[in-house]
Amino acid sequence: MPAPLSSPADAAWATITGAAADLHALRAVLGLLQWDQETHMPPAGAAARGEQLAALEAAVHERLTAPALADALAAAEETPPADPDRAAALRVLRRDQARAAAVPAALVRAIALAQSRGLQAWRAARAARAFGPFAGALAELVALRREQAAALRPVLVREAGPGAPAPEAYDALLDQYEPGMRVATLEPLLARLTGWLAPLLDTVTARPPADRSFLSRPFDAEAQWRFSLELLGAIGFDLGAGRQDRSIHPFCCGIDPGDVRLTNRLDPGLPLSPMFSALHEGGHGLYEQHLPAALRGLGLCAAASAGLHESQSRLWENLVGRSLPFWRAMLPRAQAHFPQLAGVAPERFFRAANAVERSHVRVEADEVSYNLHIALRFELELALVRGELDARELPAAWSERSERLLGLRPPDDLLGVLQDIHWSTGELGYFPTYTVGNLYSATLLAAARRALPDLDEAVGRGELAPLREWLSAHVHGVGRRKVAEEIVRDATGAGLTDRDFREYLEGKYLRELA
Amino acid sequence: MPAPLSSPADAAWATITGAAADLHALRAVLGLLQWDQETHMPPAGAAARGEQLAALEAAVHERLTAPALADALAAAEETPPADPDRAAALRVLRRDQARAAAVPAALVRAIALAQSRGLQAWRAARAARAFGPFAGALAELVALRREQAAALRPVLVREAGPGAPAPEAYDALLDQYEPGMRVATLEPLLARLTGWLAPLLDTVTARPPADRSFLSRPFDAEAQWRFSLELLGAIGFDLGAGRQDRSIHPFCCGIDPGDVRLTNRLDPGLPLSPMFSALHEGGHGLYEQHLPAALRGLGLCAAASAGLHESQSRLWENLVGRSLPFWRAMLPRAQAHFPQLAGVAPERFFRAANAVERSHVRVEADEVSYNLHIALRFELELALVRGELDARELPAAWSERSERLLGLRPPDDLLGVLQDIHWSTGELGYFPTYTVGNLYSATLLAAARRALPDLDEAVGRGELAPLREWLSAHVHGVGRRKVAEEIVRDATGAGLTDRDFREYLEGKYLRELA
Repeated sequence: MPAPLSSPADAAWATITGAAADLHALRAVLGLLQWDQETHMPPAGAAARGEQLAALEAAVHERLTAPALADALAAAEETPPADPDRAAALRVLRRDQARAAAVPAALVRAIALAQSRGLQAWRAARAARAFGPFAGALAELVALRREQAAALRPVLVREAGPGAPAPEAYDALLDQYEPGMRVATLEPLLARLTGWLAPLLDTVTARPPADRSFLSRPFDAEAQWRFSLELLGAIGFDLGAGRQDRSIHPFCCGIDPGDVRLTNRLDPGLPLSPMFSALHEGGHGLYEQHLPAALRGLGLCAAASAGLHESQSRLWENLVGRSLPFWRAMLPRAQAHFPQLAGVAPERFFRAANAVERSHVRVEADEVSYNLHIALRFELELALVRGELDARELPAAWSERSERLLGLRPPDDLLGVLQDIHWSTGELGYFPTYTVGNLYSATLLAAARRALPDLDEAVGRGELAPLREWLSAHVHGVGRRKVAEEIVRDATGAGLTDRDFREYLEGKYLRELA
Repeated sequence: MPAPLSSPADAAWATITGAAADLHALRAVLGLLQWDQETHMPPAGAAARGEQLAALEAAVHERLTAPALADALAAAEETPPADPDRAAALRVLRRDQARAAAVPAALVRAIALAQSRGLQAWRAARAARAFGPFAGALAELVALRREQAAALRPVLVREAGPGAPAPEAYDALLDQYEPGMRVATLEPLLARLTGWLAPLLDTVTARPPADRSFLSRPFDAEAQWRFSLELLGAIGFDLGAGRQDRSIHPFCCGIDPGDVRLTNRLDPGLPLSPMFSALHEGGHGLYEQHLPAALRGLGLCAAASAGLHESQSRLWENLVGRSLPFWRAMLPRAQAHFPQLAGVAPERFFRAANAVERSHVRVEADEVSYNLHIALRFELELALVRGELDARELPAAWSERSERLLGLRPPDDLLGVLQDIHWSTGELGYFPTYTVGNLYSATLLAAARRALPDLDEAVGRGELAPLREWLSAHVHGVGRRKVAEEIVRDATGAGLTDRDFREYLEGKYLRELA
């Protein structure tokens, strides 16, 4: 008896899952290439690496825009699947496919070339500590991103359906990193946030600075490395399914739940930096290690958004990692590595780790001022995309807003508009995801605390597994089955809000550290 | 005025060079994935890595078998290009395309699955030190390789043209690694080679063994690592365009001329091993670093054959690296790393580095017995592919031939038929390329010596650049523009022969070391 013929729906699903598995694998390889580039690639390998990345990106684009996949998606959409994972897979793959198909290949190539020029010009401008050499390249990148946004906007309009509020150009860029997030939500939220953050910063910086004298003697680099690995182990990062290497800037690269690569950097003069970098990247790493591996073939084994990813890094770095209970448990272990910490009490370490000061550089900013740095960048890039600001006017606009938000003007462009790499490749729409992450982190921890009433006591005993398991169950393990805000709402009862973040910061800085 | 329309020939060449550049990049990425797997990948990353390799191999196969490429090749072949590089590009890409198109995708998949089963079964058999658990998997792999050979043989027949001698099945497998090489050439050559090697081995092993007593105290592993890097620098391997990492088995992975990854292993009890591994892999690495980078887009920036590649590793490891002049130059540098070598004269080190003994394991074999190990494997796999030997009869056949060729029978299968990884994935046709490499290495060095009359004096002063430059000019820089034997013939006046290898071995072992 011959085998039964498969139905057209079966054939469509075979195409869909084949494409999803291939895309998962190809994106994993892209991640590995980028990790290798920052950690092991010899200098002379750079030119060929560019070609390799381009060839792989072309392969991803080809898979996503293949007519056979479009046909299969259309066929599968005719009978919406009863299985919720299949329904999610269809949504996610259609989302990616529609965006890939909307942007002409010539524009993708033009952006890639402009990114390469932009990065070079940005580096030249940084060397000169002046914006001038970067201005033209940035103007070109902004123009291309506006073109890209114009190509993507109709997809957002179509997805929103008739009668929904019309998305603006910036939304189309933002949506790439934070699916579903819109300017109409972010703008009032950031206005409210800066409204209470600025006076909080005034209050906290009016106090005498924390005592950091015990951090002034050089810390041994090898001991820093060993303790950073110990911290990763303490939060439950699995070093049998991941590793830590050195790079100039710390990052996390999730190749697969079984293969998550973190990096860190060591500086004998900055002893806290590798500790909190390990906790930050380790937080990202825990998300990647607990993604739903079984759903690789449905394209759902990936993080829901950049902001939700950042919520995990900030939760472990700041809300847990800069808490007093955490250092009650970990300081004795740190003291075993660093003689400089002998006799330092947890309270003193806690205060030093939470020093607040007005500063120019976002990546070095404390919890209180950090989101003011983001508000500054969000306002500027929104004005750029809206055509209300010319790229050449950025330094003056930066200085004016920095004065208004942070109370200081940068002495030069290196400490101002040139400090972040994002705009060097025209990444517009990414910065606000950092604030989204900070807000989600507080909302998630508040909910975890309700679910785990003795959380602080457990953390104080070094028991971090209950929190990690709660996060895995409610956040990590969902993958891309839901969008970020839906994940947070299901886990906490609340969506994107500054309420919990305000309670957290005010509790810590106005009461605990007063 | 509108731009002139490009001709159909221009369009065909655009397709060809686009495909060649993409294939170069994708193969480079496959190399990186394999390097990473052996050096840095965490254990839990293995399953996903398999998927990544499969997705990339599918992308390579798709590029090679795309109808647009077949059309472009046919169009370009209608007017053979005057430019010799373009003519070579056409030949090489057609060669790869014809082979990819000849093997059905279902057979490719079946082989990949059988390889994965084979590797597992081989590991289980090694753990049991008995062939039994591997027998079935190997029989399946042999059957699939015979099927693959049957699919590939018509391509070889077509390329050879009417009236040419008919290639046999094994030729189709061998030709994948050593383009143009045939059993009809190899079989009589190996018979002649073993005819004089066996009595030479008798003569040399009848002498008292070399004094290796100064190698018996443990050597510091860190010093071994530093000296291996110093050796790489001495032969001219560029560590700005490559690197050395640790792995269980040393290998060379050429990702691009600007990015060549070598590995090595350290064992305090085997001090010579990392030195000669560095020279061996460094020899492969020099070939990769001096391939014609400018011809990436023509698909010619790759080695001509596995045998020619091996000629470069063996030339640096043995013909240079185990010579007395080399250690006159390098022993003082080794002594700076290893107190055990204090007071050892270059002649004594030279004798220890060239100790000859009958042994079971190919990878540990000296220069005199090495090719007898290859002859053993070649005879057996030829018989397997011809259907004259059943895979299950291998241990007995191995034992009988080992007795005849090497004068000893393995005490168990681990030291016999299970020792090499090649058959675990059904790689049949690879082993003879090692002997091809050994023979080419002697012929090339003899020609270099004619071109550089004071070569030995220069080596004795540590001046290795003239030899390296001669090899780059005559071998490395040719890339795939010619097949291996043509490269050797153009460089030396002679093709594949055992004459120079015999002169080299007899000169060293019957005169210099007598």
